[in-house]
Amino acid sequence: MASAEQVDMTVLDEVVREASRRYMFDTVAAHRIRLKGPADYVTEVDSSIQNYIKNELAERYPDIQFTGEENNDQDADFNGLVWALDPVDGTTNLIHHMHHSAISLALLDGGAVIKAVIYQPYLDEMFTAELGKGAFLNGKPIHVSAVADLGMALIGLGTSHKGINRAEAAAQFQMFGKVFESCADIRRSGSASLDLAWVAAGRLDGFLERDVKLWDHAAGRLLVTEAGGVVTNWQGGDLGSAIHTSIVAGNPYVAEHLREVFLQ
Amino acid sequence: MASAEQVDMTVLDEVVREASRRYMFDTVAAHRIRLKGPADYVTEVDSSIQNYIKNELAERYPDIQFTGEENNDQDADFNGLVWALDPVDGTTNLIHHMHHSAISLALLDGGAVIKAVIYQPYLDEMFTAELGKGAFLNGKPIHVSAVADLGMALIGLGTSHKGINRAEAAAQFQMFGKVFESCADIRRSGSASLDLAWVAAGRLDGFLERDVKLWDHAAGRLLVTEAGGVVTNWQGGDLGSAIHTSIVAGNPYVAEHLREVFLQ
Repeated sequence: MASAEQVDMTVLDEVVREASRRYMFDTVAAHRIRLKGPADYVTEVDSSIQNYIKNELAERYPDIQFTGEENNDQDADFNGLVWALDPVDGTTNLIHHMHHSAISLALLDGGAVIKAVIYQPYLDEMFTAELGKGAFLNGKPIHVSAVADLGMALIGLGTSHKGINRAEAAAQFQMFGKVFESCADIRRSGSASLDLAWVAAGRLDGFLERDVKLWDHAAGRLLVTEAGGVVTNWQGGDLGSAIHTSIVAGNPYVAEHLREVFLQ
Repeated sequence: MASAEQVDMTVLDEVVREASRRYMFDTVAAHRIRLKGPADYVTEVDSSIQNYIKNELAERYPDIQFTGEENNDQDADFNGLVWALDPVDGTTNLIHHMHHSAISLALLDGGAVIKAVIYQPYLDEMFTAELGKGAFLNGKPIHVSAVADLGMALIGLGTSHKGINRAEAAAQFQMFGKVFESCADIRRSGSASLDLAWVAAGRLDGFLERDVKLWDHAAGRLLVTEAGGVVTNWQGGDLGSAIHTSIVAGNPYVAEHLREVFLQ
């Protein structure tokens, strides 16, 4: 049986960096695009990075299951060890040359995230965390912000819209309006994993989205909790290994008070 | 009398870069903050950059008037030549270490923008334009996107909120919801000048905000038009030298169809 202790963070760091070096800056491949759904794209960069990382991990850790954004093999047994990979979180940003996309890799054990790596190659920022060992940016400890006044808080929003209807879109923006009225300002970056990493680093004070997928939030949520923050679904529950979930993250004050605002 | 022909783009490039090198990365100064209004901050970085650039320009071009975000001397005669400087567009981003702020400098002649420089130091991206001579990123020509389907368009939004009341905030987000339903997705970066530069570079297909100031949009609007795009206020009129204005920018198709959506 595989055990989590076998997994070396320096190996994860190097595999993810190498995948980025090989494929992330291939602007030709970034324009070989397939539409998965409304505003839901996959490029050849996504596929190449996923294949590379999946193969490298399988070679080193053959007993650990794999689930990723760009495959249909999502029936992993979450009682055991499972990788959750988003090869390019921020694919629309990649297509638009926005320099704000990341590779997000997490290791789950029994539905809990125990290791996390999020790499943003344009700024060469490597966010890492292990359960119980803190969160780091390029090797230096990071912490959630100390903001304890929602009116001073900068909040990242995710715009869920895959399969959303017109009334749901309107309701979503009505809720965003309430958040905006309550906080200092909002941001919409196009990468949930980087929004979570930025909450961990104190750049954002909070983040929320109506519908994120496991590989979007798995690494980011460990970063936030290891940096002293709180991550739950909108009902305040644990995210576990649900493939779809709502999410709210922030420093403890902001996470709690955001839930109050948007559940009004 | 000063004449626009005296003004050398390489001088503007160098003055702006030097201001950035001296002050933009001073994280201590970035946390010496004064609150101008709700969610409206000025830091010592803003002041230092404005003072440096204002002095350098005054030395070289003593007859050209100056207006900038961080002074009260905004009664320039716009029949003549006027600098419009935003020393840090994206001050909140600067305070939050978001690596997405810019120095924005424009030269206006009779209310028309004739030269523009926007510098984003974190990615070392220098956007430049001169009236009638095209738009450039690090010396290479840039063009607005060719997207001619609003459903495929990525739209930057500015969240105006200085002095906004609760009803206006709700109305603003209702309109954002309509834009979101009509387009592929939205972004909210926190820097209007970079949003405009990114429209010019085809990274965003459009941008809109309810209330921008002259120094936020002056350089960016020349970049967009020189890159083949369109910039107007929400009524379709020219922005001129108005200190406050609404703005919609995009490639010609997107700008026209955005106006239709949010004026519904």
